[in-house]
Amino acid sequence: MTTPIPVYLDCDTGIDDTVALAYLLASPAVEVVGIGTVSGNTTAAQAARNTLDLLHLAGHDGIPVALGAHDHLDHPYGGGAAWVHGENGIGDVEVPHSPAEVDTRSAAELLIDLSHRYAGRLHVLTIGPMTNIAHALEQDPTLPSRVAEVTAMGGAALAPGNISPASEANVHNDPQAAAALIEADWDVTLVPLDVTLEHTLSEEQRGMLLADDRPFVRAVGEILDHYFDFYVTTYGRRTCALHDPLAAVIAAGGVSPARAPRVPVVVDTSWGPGRGQTIADLRGQRVAARDHEGVRTRVVLEVDAPIGAHLVETILAR
Amino acid sequence: MTTPIPVYLDCDTGIDDTVALAYLLASPAVEVVGIGTVSGNTTAAQAARNTLDLLHLAGHDGIPVALGAHDHLDHPYGGGAAWVHGENGIGDVEVPHSPAEVDTRSAAELLIDLSHRYAGRLHVLTIGPMTNIAHALEQDPTLPSRVAEVTAMGGAALAPGNISPASEANVHNDPQAAAALIEADWDVTLVPLDVTLEHTLSEEQRGMLLADDRPFVRAVGEILDHYFDFYVTTYGRRTCALHDPLAAVIAAGGVSPARAPRVPVVVDTSWGPGRGQTIADLRGQRVAARDHEGVRTRVVLEVDAPIGAHLVETILAR
Repeated sequence: MTTPIPVYLDCDTGIDDTVALAYLLASPAVEVVGIGTVSGNTTAAQAARNTLDLLHLAGHDGIPVALGAHDHLDHPYGGGAAWVHGENGIGDVEVPHSPAEVDTRSAAELLIDLSHRYAGRLHVLTIGPMTNIAHALEQDPTLPSRVAEVTAMGGAALAPGNISPASEANVHNDPQAAAALIEADWDVTLVPLDVTLEHTLSEEQRGMLLADDRPFVRAVGEILDHYFDFYVTTYGRRTCALHDPLAAVIAAGGVSPARAPRVPVVVDTSWGPGRGQTIADLRGQRVAARDHEGVRTRVVLEVDAPIGAHLVETILAR
Repeated sequence: MTTPIPVYLDCDTGIDDTVALAYLLASPAVEVVGIGTVSGNTTAAQAARNTLDLLHLAGHDGIPVALGAHDHLDHPYGGGAAWVHGENGIGDVEVPHSPAEVDTRSAAELLIDLSHRYAGRLHVLTIGPMTNIAHALEQDPTLPSRVAEVTAMGGAALAPGNISPASEANVHNDPQAAAALIEADWDVTLVPLDVTLEHTLSEEQRGMLLADDRPFVRAVGEILDHYFDFYVTTYGRRTCALHDPLAAVIAAGGVSPARAPRVPVVVDTSWGPGRGQTIADLRGQRVAARDHEGVRTRVVLEVDAPIGAHLVETILAR
C-alpha cells in the first residue's frame, strides 16, 4: 500500500463540496490534513460551520478547519448561491452541531503551516473561490516550492460559463485570486465546467447513499436532494453535476485526465463582459493534443471514465 | 424560378473572400448588386483592386466596387495577414489588371444607396471586419429597416479563436463595429469559427477548379494554393477552412443552419485579454436548442451538410 497523499482542502461547503469531502474522507489514496473555508456558495463562516458539523458526523473531528476569507481580493462577498445550495449551503439539511470550533489560524496560515509539515508532498485541492490561496501566496511567496501539486475546480475553457455566459462561479467570484493561483510556479490541474458537467449522479446512486446505516453518508444523500432539484433545468431530469467531486477524484487519482493539454490560461480580471473567464489557448489542438513549452497548468477537457459509480462506491466502502 | 436575392457584399479580398465571390457570382440564388471593401486580410485599397481584377476576369465588370474604411473604429489598420493570404491578399497570384476603377461612393454610401433601391429585399453579407457596416449604420440609422437580412462571417462562440485564444480575426479587427452590427435592429446570422472550421476543400476539389477552361475559375484554384499551405498546421494536411464561403453559401440558401440558436451576443470591445470575443450566451442549451425571446441574432453552430462539393459544383456549373 502506498502512503496516502496529504491534502489541504480549500472549500465553500456547499453541496458538491460535501460530496467531495465525503469522497476524500473515504478514499484510501488521500489523507485530508487540513481544511480552509472561503466565501462562495455560502459565507466562509457558514462553510466552516458546515464543514465542522459534517466532519463530526463522519467521526473526523481531528482534522483542523480554518476560517478563510469572507471577502474577495477586489470586491466584497456577493451573497452566495442559496438557489443552488440552499440557505445554509448544504441543501437546508440540519446536521447535528459539532462541539468543535475553527482553528486559531486563518486558512492561509494553516495552508502555509501544512506546506512545511508535508513539504514536497502536500497536494492543494481548491473547490471554491481561490482567495485563501492568493492570500497564502502573498504571505509566503515560497509556498509553491513546498507543494507537490494543485488541483482546482474552476473555470470554463470552451464550455459556456454558469454564473455568466463565459465564466464559472469559483473563478468569477475572485478572478484576481484565480490569476494568482495560475501564475504561481507550481503544477496546476484546472478542472473546468467543460469536464465537470459531463459527470452526474443518478437518483439510484443517491438512493444508495440514503440507504446506508451511517448518519453521515445518509446526510450526504439528503443534502443532494436540493441540488438534484436545481439541475432539472440543466439536464432535464433530477440529477446533478459533479463539479467539486470530479476535482477530488482527480486529485486522489481515482480517474485520470485523458485530454488535459498544458496551455497558457489567462484569467479576465476586468469588469467587462468577459470578467472571470479562464481564457485557455486551445488553438492548434485539432490534429493532436499539444502541450506548450514551459507551461505548468493543464486544463482537463476529458477524463478516462465516468466517475459517478466510483464516487458512490468509495463513499459506501468501509 | 425565384428571383435572385440582391446581395451587398462587404469583403477584404482575401483568399477565402475570392472563393466566396466566385460562388456568389455563379449561384443562381443570388445577384451581387454591389461590393464594398474594408481593410482586414489586406488593405481596403488592395482588396478593392483584387475585387475589380477578379470581377473583370469573371466577366462581371458591371458590379460596382466601392472603397471602404482603411482604418477601424478605435484603431488604425493593423497590417493584414500576409502569412495567410499572401502579400497581395490573393495568394501572390497575378490576376490581369482590370481597367475598371472603384465607385465614386464610399462602401457605406453604396450600401445605403442599395438599401433604397432594393428596399426590404437587400441581403447584407459581410466577410471582413464590419467597419463599413458600422459607418453606414451611423450615417443612416434607418438602414436596418430596409435590409432583409444580414449574414456575417465572424466570431468564435465556443471554439477557440484564431487571431487570439478567444477571438476571431474579423471581429478582433474591429470589435466596436461588430458590436454595432449585432446591436442594430435587423436579423443577423453570425457564422463563427465553430462552424466554418468544420468545412474544408480537398486537393481534388482544388484540382477541379484548376482544370477548368475559364481563366477566372483557374485563378481561384491557383489563389487557393497559398491558403492550402497555411492550413497544414491546423489540419495536418493541405486543405483549407471555408470561412467566408460558408457565410456565402448560407446567405444563398445553399445550406441550412441545423443548430443556430438566437442568443444574446456581446462583443468584448475592451483592450483586455478577451478583446474581440463574441460572448454568446449558450448556457442552458444542453437539453434542447433554445431561442431567447426578442433576440434577432442567431449563432450558427452546425449546418446540415458539408459544403465543399456544393461550392465547387456551383462554381464549375455553367
